[in-house]
Amino acid sequence: MRFLVAPSGFKESLDACDVADAIARGIYRVVPGAIVDKAPLVDGGEGSARALAEATGGTLVPALVTGPVGEEIPSHFALLGGPGPRTAVVEMAAAAGLRLVPKNHRDPATTTTYGVGELIRAALDLGVDRILVGCGDSGTSDGGAGALQALGARITDAHGREIGRGGAALAGATALDLSEVDPRLDKAEITVACNQHNLLCGDRGVARVFGPQKGATPDQVDLLSDALDNWADLLGPGVRTMPGGGASGGLGAGLHALGATLLPRFDVVLEHSDLDARLPDADLVITAEGAIDGQTPHGKVPAEVARRAKRHGKPVIALAGTIGENARANHDAGIDAYASIIAAPVTLDTAMARTAELLTDATERTLRLLLVGAALTR
Amino acid sequence: MRFLVAPSGFKESLDACDVADAIARGIYRVVPGAIVDKAPLVDGGEGSARALAEATGGTLVPALVTGPVGEEIPSHFALLGGPGPRTAVVEMAAAAGLRLVPKNHRDPATTTTYGVGELIRAALDLGVDRILVGCGDSGTSDGGAGALQALGARITDAHGREIGRGGAALAGATALDLSEVDPRLDKAEITVACNQHNLLCGDRGVARVFGPQKGATPDQVDLLSDALDNWADLLGPGVRTMPGGGASGGLGAGLHALGATLLPRFDVVLEHSDLDARLPDADLVITAEGAIDGQTPHGKVPAEVARRAKRHGKPVIALAGTIGENARANHDAGIDAYASIIAAPVTLDTAMARTAELLTDATERTLRLLLVGAALTR
Repeated sequence: MRFLVAPSGFKESLDACDVADAIARGIYRVVPGAIVDKAPLVDGGEGSARALAEATGGTLVPALVTGPVGEEIPSHFALLGGPGPRTAVVEMAAAAGLRLVPKNHRDPATTTTYGVGELIRAALDLGVDRILVGCGDSGTSDGGAGALQALGARITDAHGREIGRGGAALAGATALDLSEVDPRLDKAEITVACNQHNLLCGDRGVARVFGPQKGATPDQVDLLSDALDNWADLLGPGVRTMPGGGASGGLGAGLHALGATLLPRFDVVLEHSDLDARLPDADLVITAEGAIDGQTPHGKVPAEVARRAKRHGKPVIALAGTIGENARANHDAGIDAYASIIAAPVTLDTAMARTAELLTDATERTLRLLLVGAALTR
Repeated sequence: MRFLVAPSGFKESLDACDVADAIARGIYRVVPGAIVDKAPLVDGGEGSARALAEATGGTLVPALVTGPVGEEIPSHFALLGGPGPRTAVVEMAAAAGLRLVPKNHRDPATTTTYGVGELIRAALDLGVDRILVGCGDSGTSDGGAGALQALGARITDAHGREIGRGGAALAGATALDLSEVDPRLDKAEITVACNQHNLLCGDRGVARVFGPQKGATPDQVDLLSDALDNWADLLGPGVRTMPGGGASGGLGAGLHALGATLLPRFDVVLEHSDLDARLPDADLVITAEGAIDGQTPHGKVPAEVARRAKRHGKPVIALAGTIGENARANHDAGIDAYASIIAAPVTLDTAMARTAELLTDATERTLRLLLVGAALTR
């Protein structure tokens, strides 16, 4: 019996590799001779660089960069292994993620993606042909302005002075000068893995949708929204509602001004996981994510895995910490059945501290149910 | 596809009939044409009289009796339907259950089973041939003395005075006179459905094992233990460690003095559920209880159901609110697989308030997993 285990990470609790390992342990308890093919998946956010480095036999390169609130922090990017163009993965969350913003500094009007630009520069120093920028879990809303500045762009106000860092400062920007941008970007291709639903401006724009999550007050949201509107004018036509332009607080739109291509995150990420090539051999696909609910079919890992599995006619089950509202919508996305890893009344904190163990136990329970189902047909 | 749904109630949350209904709803969601045979099971404790009345097409007879702390309370017993001897079910918890003891009166040295004796008398008034006394969920530890007094026994002290009510008063008892006991008991047969592990005296005796649960302090436990030792001397030889003698705070031992037969509770209770006759037709057996853990194989409903199902070679799955420690021991008892009804981090109170809904959803999830398993064999 061959299992393809293709889970997401459980946010702030267990990364995708560890999730896959925990599920595999549960499988072996019930089917000792099982063949388990582990394909931990990432969505471009936290942990993506490490996971893709591991998946391709690449390396993680350390780098010191400017953090989201201005101090120097240790960060990293991935240099992927394998054939094809020499590719770096810059995970924006590793330089400007929400977790890097101290709780008392959670004002997205002031945090910067400067460190993301520094990571891109560090990758260029290694002579890569291609840079894949993973969005997600950001703590910034500066429209990618910081990243552009780190790469040599000049953003100036009416007096010709360089503007400060953070989204609010964009309100005073009157000119964007890309003439001094790192020339190596002419040859290296930048691809941004985005959630295509994230837009830069308007009612569904990043300030209004994500500002409050990142710590902005209603007044700050208004200011930020106006500032990003002004920034959009400088970035050029079409960026206001470009799919993915609002990814990671507008980093997508900013990098687009440097010639980057914005692509749906799973098209990019799954390219490196080889999932389609591995599906034909699987008897059963097991996926997982922290929560499975009515939002899952809109681009979350379990549904994306299930859609691809269904093209090969494979059965798919999903494990989750929380089975939330309208989870049943996932059956249409190709998830045949799902189970919670929770086995008793428990607090979220306790469950998160024991995710690996709960996953292993839940996998065992789930497989035993499958065996009962299999026996029923005899 | 034929399902036999044979759950226990979920204590203080949902009785066995409602549990069976909730599971049936989940089955129909996945297998609309399913044939569902519901066999809600009881263990002799709370809700048993009603469930057995419903299972046999009998009636519930109301009665006013003396409650465990002495006040008059509304109670009931069941008159079973069907062929065979005219049988009443007296559920001791309906007259002396822990839930009838106000929290600030939880001193088992003072609570009485007097009302249980009154229920037996009320059943005799209806001319029954047989009285089945269900133990479990008691709030008393009076060795059944109250029940005996209500039926005409005289328990007196060294001065020939009738002793007071409650377990502690038994310390002063010097004589038990059964000459005035209700003569109708000569003809009516009393069967007590007991947990055979409950003993009257000694280290595993009812005072030491259950006293603390029922609200006794360590000093009260010592006093009660001594009082029950003295009471055992009056009840006659062999009662100190008679299997089931300690059931419901010693009610088993007390009624034994009146000629009652103590039997393992499931042998008694399952006799009225017709489970063995219904098992051969089932394709799958679903059982359930509030918790499934390492204790379940020691006489709890899911394990008893599973053992009987296995004699017919039927697959068994169990649903529970809590999958507890060493739950895996249940596989040896014949439970092939189990699942929790909990689908997200949640408090016990919230889960208990939503048990029916959680059960239905969990049944649906579980059946979908079975279908995946069934499809795997194709």
